[in-house]
Amino acid sequence: MALDKVLAHIDENLPDATDRLLKLLSIPSISTDPAYKDACDQAADWLVDDLNSIGFEASKRRTPGHPMVVAHGPEVGQHVMFYGHYDVQPVDPLDLWDSPPFEPAIEDTPKGKVIRGRGSSDDKGQLMTFVEACRAWKAVNGSLPAKISIFFEGEEESGSPSLVPFMKDNADELRADIALICDTGLFGETTPAIVTRLRGLLGEEITITGPSKDLHSGMYGGISMNPIRVLAKIIAGLHDETGRITLPDFYEGVPELPTDIAGQWDDLNFDHFEFLREVGLSTPAGEQGRTALEMIWSRPTCEVNGISGGYEGDGFKTVLPSKATAKISFRLVGDQDPHAIRKAFRAYVQDQLPPDCSVTFDQHGASSASQMATDHPAFEQARQALSDEWPNAAAFTGCGGSIPIAGHFKEILGMDAMLIGFGKDDDQIHSPNEKYDLESFHKGIRSWARILDKLSEV
Amino acid sequence: MALDKVLAHIDENLPDATDRLLKLLSIPSISTDPAYKDACDQAADWLVDDLNSIGFEASKRRTPGHPMVVAHGPEVGQHVMFYGHYDVQPVDPLDLWDSPPFEPAIEDTPKGKVIRGRGSSDDKGQLMTFVEACRAWKAVNGSLPAKISIFFEGEEESGSPSLVPFMKDNADELRADIALICDTGLFGETTPAIVTRLRGLLGEEITITGPSKDLHSGMYGGISMNPIRVLAKIIAGLHDETGRITLPDFYEGVPELPTDIAGQWDDLNFDHFEFLREVGLSTPAGEQGRTALEMIWSRPTCEVNGISGGYEGDGFKTVLPSKATAKISFRLVGDQDPHAIRKAFRAYVQDQLPPDCSVTFDQHGASSASQMATDHPAFEQARQALSDEWPNAAAFTGCGGSIPIAGHFKEILGMDAMLIGFGKDDDQIHSPNEKYDLESFHKGIRSWARILDKLSEV
Repeated sequence: MALDKVLAHIDENLPDATDRLLKLLSIPSISTDPAYKDACDQAADWLVDDLNSIGFEASKRRTPGHPMVVAHGPEVGQHVMFYGHYDVQPVDPLDLWDSPPFEPAIEDTPKGKVIRGRGSSDDKGQLMTFVEACRAWKAVNGSLPAKISIFFEGEEESGSPSLVPFMKDNADELRADIALICDTGLFGETTPAIVTRLRGLLGEEITITGPSKDLHSGMYGGISMNPIRVLAKIIAGLHDETGRITLPDFYEGVPELPTDIAGQWDDLNFDHFEFLREVGLSTPAGEQGRTALEMIWSRPTCEVNGISGGYEGDGFKTVLPSKATAKISFRLVGDQDPHAIRKAFRAYVQDQLPPDCSVTFDQHGASSASQMATDHPAFEQARQALSDEWPNAAAFTGCGGSIPIAGHFKEILGMDAMLIGFGKDDDQIHSPNEKYDLESFHKGIRSWARILDKLSEV
Repeated sequence: MALDKVLAHIDENLPDATDRLLKLLSIPSISTDPAYKDACDQAADWLVDDLNSIGFEASKRRTPGHPMVVAHGPEVGQHVMFYGHYDVQPVDPLDLWDSPPFEPAIEDTPKGKVIRGRGSSDDKGQLMTFVEACRAWKAVNGSLPAKISIFFEGEEESGSPSLVPFMKDNADELRADIALICDTGLFGETTPAIVTRLRGLLGEEITITGPSKDLHSGMYGGISMNPIRVLAKIIAGLHDETGRITLPDFYEGVPELPTDIAGQWDDLNFDHFEFLREVGLSTPAGEQGRTALEMIWSRPTCEVNGISGGYEGDGFKTVLPSKATAKISFRLVGDQDPHAIRKAFRAYVQDQLPPDCSVTFDQHGASSASQMATDHPAFEQARQALSDEWPNAAAFTGCGGSIPIAGHFKEILGMDAMLIGFGKDDDQIHSPNEKYDLESFHKGIRSWARILDKLSEV
């Protein structure tokens, strides 16, 4: 049987596949920092070369930001579009990494072998699971089991400014029967998941200015407004005592969880104590009266992702600063409108300003939540394929993160998307010491081989 | 007359005096940053050499931190102790300086010539006014008009950790009939001031820890407590809506301003609109129902001098941070007890912590407010000397800053102190582009010559 040979080939050639991933991981393609622009370009080139080497027609496509990579395989059966992103998160605080983030390596750990390095899980390791599955199919059978297109972007970690224009300009080329997105995780250690709902994301950076320059807090303290105090009051006022967000009409479009979905989630027996214990916590800190899975999958949030102002160095400086800045983001669900929430947020901030203080706003992305079309037949095929590979049957889950591409595929291309990934909760994505289990990589490749096989049955 | 000759000598030799100051300013003696330890040592050496060259017996005295400089002149009449500090504030944000902070220069400005550079006003330029007055006396008369001792420290901008132990260990050597402290400013452009009250200072650095590491705000947002939110709530809760500080018993020991002092201050016709306009502000932002001078001279404050947490770089990173830090300071007045307030502050912070959050505290100095003994005859002598030099008569004023040395002189050595200085509100001390008016320097030297002359009349 073709699939068995492909799986055997994957097992035999895992060391080569791993070596290729380590090469890609060594390219520091941090998209949010202009200093790494060349590295982003280099990562795109590497992918183009690799895809061309296994029979795709791949090309690097310029955008005003970092380039896209688009590749097409030969016409065979159903048309499948695979999406991933080659850019990675910044690495600071660098001193918390146990090894250099862009000198990736295989490490033995008490829980098994891991691939350590920035981007190993998010998303280079994940996107390579699909590429390696294609390589194995081609090596064993001389062809791919479906018409496969591939679409990699390089701005996912920096708000994807070029994505929508590029998709609109190239809609006919990018449209397929179904999209596959590999940027999510397993549910638990051995339970694969197909994500059926994603939260949206709205990012705002606000800078409060008080005095026109930094002042001496002795000479001016008491008579001058301190912008850090103003910013603290703004942030403190965003939540009430029950953990709800206070912006007017914020919960407009937030649905209650349907009882059938609530039942499915209960059946998952999510161990939130274990989930929190891994990161040094014990108590779900979200809205009162919500389950842990609701807090991360189906309820909106407001987080402060960064704050700065005044003297931040060693020691003490009695400065009364001119400016204070915060990066604030909202995770959105259901039909929440990111633009309406942006407006409400800005009005709230303006309303909080005391005399002599001003504010500037910088926007960083605005995407709605997504709900997948689970009645598309590919969902059941993928669920079976994943259940064949892993010890436990695959689950339909939510995801607290924001992967706006799924919504864009639906809105711009009219294409449904399946989100399947092999990351784990302890992968430390967006944190120091990011890793990807070698088992995630290996079984991820095998999972895609099985899914492609099932999809080819249509 | 001896004094007239000294004043003429000062006028003639001003260029040389300025050159000496520029040399001292070029030494980057930032005491709070360990990277500049050698520079602090170098500044102390420079002062020892300079004082020895004009007939003092000067020496550098080791401490666990930066060295002290102590010098004694010959026994002649009343014993006067002069205090200043050779260390300076950090220079960041460096990009806001129009010229390098440690490449001092004389600049022409629309308001006259200024000496530009870090420390020009706080406190190297000020301390050199006294040294130059002594040099001129010595040059003209071959001797000094009083027994003069000099005491320079190098840790004033970093909480003076070695000061009290050093004073206790050397109390007999340092005790004099009266202390002169040059680290304050003029009242207005042409009105000299003798400061008769100083606010105390209490510094606390707090770090809130939530999760044990930085997390992805998609995966964990909603279920995990964000330490920036906790910190913002703590800061926001420190003031009520009328601008009063909310810590229990915080106003214990804060006296109402006596009506005679209130009357004197009213007579000063302080233009707080102009004072605020210079720094881009218009509205006194302190406690409701207090005059502007009360806000900065006789009321306590709580300021946030710095805050940091999460991602502070360019762009956006959807991190849910492990830690958030703030540097918070209190200016104290009357009989407020810094140790009791530290205790109340820490109890308040602990009380605000939600489950899973912890806090660490670092203390940065704790000094009480000081009130000077204006009935000491030297006060009236100095007032007359200053009034002779400047267009307007000298005023007895307050000072919002904290110069704990005055309190230490009284408590440890039983010695009264007069605070006289020539800084201006727009000197930008503790800020980029610090300057000292050449006129402040020149008339400052002349003022000390006159004061020494008056004090020698005893």
